[in-house]
Amino acid sequence: MRNKLWILISLIFIGFACSSPVADNSTPPADQLPSWNDGKVKKEIFDFVDAVTDPESPTFVEIPDRIAVFDNDGTLWSEQPLYFQLFFVIYQIKKMAPDHPEWITEQPFKAILDDDMATLKTFGMKELLELVMTTHAGITSVEFENAVMDWLHNDRHPSLKKPFTKLVYQPMLELMNYLRDNDFKVFIVSGGGIDFMRPWAEEVYGIPRNQVVGSSIVTQFELKDGEPVLVRMPELNFIDDKEGKPVGIYRHIGRKPIFCGGNSDGDLQMMQYTDSGKGKRMMLYIHHTDAEREWAYDRDSHIGRFNKALDEATEKGWTIVNMKTDWKVIYPE
Amino acid sequence: MRNKLWILISLIFIGFACSSPVADNSTPPADQLPSWNDGKVKKEIFDFVDAVTDPESPTFVEIPDRIAVFDNDGTLWSEQPLYFQLFFVIYQIKKMAPDHPEWITEQPFKAILDDDMATLKTFGMKELLELVMTTHAGITSVEFENAVMDWLHNDRHPSLKKPFTKLVYQPMLELMNYLRDNDFKVFIVSGGGIDFMRPWAEEVYGIPRNQVVGSSIVTQFELKDGEPVLVRMPELNFIDDKEGKPVGIYRHIGRKPIFCGGNSDGDLQMMQYTDSGKGKRMMLYIHHTDAEREWAYDRDSHIGRFNKALDEATEKGWTIVNMKTDWKVIYPE
Repeated sequence: MRNKLWILISLIFIGFACSSPVADNSTPPADQLPSWNDGKVKKEIFDFVDAVTDPESPTFVEIPDRIAVFDNDGTLWSEQPLYFQLFFVIYQIKKMAPDHPEWITEQPFKAILDDDMATLKTFGMKELLELVMTTHAGITSVEFENAVMDWLHNDRHPSLKKPFTKLVYQPMLELMNYLRDNDFKVFIVSGGGIDFMRPWAEEVYGIPRNQVVGSSIVTQFELKDGEPVLVRMPELNFIDDKEGKPVGIYRHIGRKPIFCGGNSDGDLQMMQYTDSGKGKRMMLYIHHTDAEREWAYDRDSHIGRFNKALDEATEKGWTIVNMKTDWKVIYPE
Repeated sequence: MRNKLWILISLIFIGFACSSPVADNSTPPADQLPSWNDGKVKKEIFDFVDAVTDPESPTFVEIPDRIAVFDNDGTLWSEQPLYFQLFFVIYQIKKMAPDHPEWITEQPFKAILDDDMATLKTFGMKELLELVMTTHAGITSVEFENAVMDWLHNDRHPSLKKPFTKLVYQPMLELMNYLRDNDFKVFIVSGGGIDFMRPWAEEVYGIPRNQVVGSSIVTQFELKDGEPVLVRMPELNFIDDKEGKPVGIYRHIGRKPIFCGGNSDGDLQMMQYTDSGKGKRMMLYIHHTDAEREWAYDRDSHIGRFNKALDEATEKGWTIVNMKTDWKVIYPE
């Protein structure tokens, strides 16, 4: 449950969707994945897309069934040293602090106000839940969206000193565009908050709000001075992680994906679910192997642990991206 | 709650999406709503769409914000003498009966097996919940979808003697196509079961599965003999009716609609929510006034009651469709 809460605490914004030029018959096709090094993984991606989109292919898939799902944290953008949604929580607590003088001495707020990361990392379910509910609930849907956008515009990643919206993976932006160019419908299926991701997912990833699936808290319709509002309640509604991911896919998409991208054990069940369909499918795992340009972590990491799934992906021959060798660049620009 | 359950018990299939010819500059535009009589309502629809799609209009709306939501029962297809989803329940109970000899003497099953509509109509929450859970839960998502399609292909409406899929409203099919031709994204937001509607909504209404919002039961991911399945549990997850409709819109769409179609008090809150946004909006209520070609009912009906909302729609000047005078035809063909 603690892990679920860290997951629940998670995602942002790049402001440009690079669309590759469409090739016509008279010129050789442009490389639609220019940030991917040539090799086994890149070939597997091209081969998969050809196999499901070529009308002559025995494994051709009709357009409505071309569903691709992607985890967000660690798959589409970085997730170290904390899920980015937790940086939003920290930012929000500090912003709210002047109205809560008691927080100066009260945990779990004190640790945040003191920038005491050591204590913050010891927090269990109770403390994390209190922090999430304090920052995510008790306000309307509009107020929450404004808070997320305020954070995005004003906060910076602590070590990389960039807006979080610049810490998305350029190769994955290209992959999503490539799939869309081939009539895939692309969804996010993340343990992060659905309402945390939606305000920026369209601009950053080209993914419309209604194609974002995530964890949620209970929301309630009220007439406030005659004005209809949606009030966010301090109660969990749905945890879109592990076994929750195939459930979130069923609930929001209603079709089994044929492509699934992820990076951690939290994505294993949606990989298994994707793999279980008939016909050609592609399960693609990002392995964080690049301590120099990003981070290197897998089996022992508290965040984005890739252990059981690493074994299963290897055993089943799923595609594993080696970030260090498969990607020419990590971030845009 | 009883009403909610009747709502929960509801929605089908026509197999043709009529798309109107696109006009070019040299010919007068074709009437994209040929089944609507000329008059105030038809003009209001055209005026609204012009006002939000003409780039020169002061009330122009960008494409991502062109969200239209439609109730299903009584708005896109008929709902008398029972919500159609209840006919599915009846069909399913009869199909399952040979394996349940005890049902011959046990309520609520006996009433269904005896075609005892009088008793059926006396059922309260407890009985209805038992019928719904017996037919909607305890099976996998795939088994449920197969059951819905079996019903659709084999059952007929008791008085109209047609497949339920033929009892959708031709004028509304045209309206949805007209909106889509103008770059609206069209959603169903229904009290009926989300998984009951999805298998046929795309073929009948042109609405993709992920644009269907409805009531749901809890679903659970399981590995059954190593095979991932989604098992439908006998527990309500979400009731997408009344106050639930704006919540369902927030959860699945993440944007406030600018167009809302409905027919009953159950749609009032999503009408209010749609109306509360800035800029031009359209709230369109279907009034069932045609006892000859369909049914006539409003304030006193148990199904699709249109009472409080009829007052509010009148008072606020929302569009009210008089089925008898505004529609040239009711059903396709």
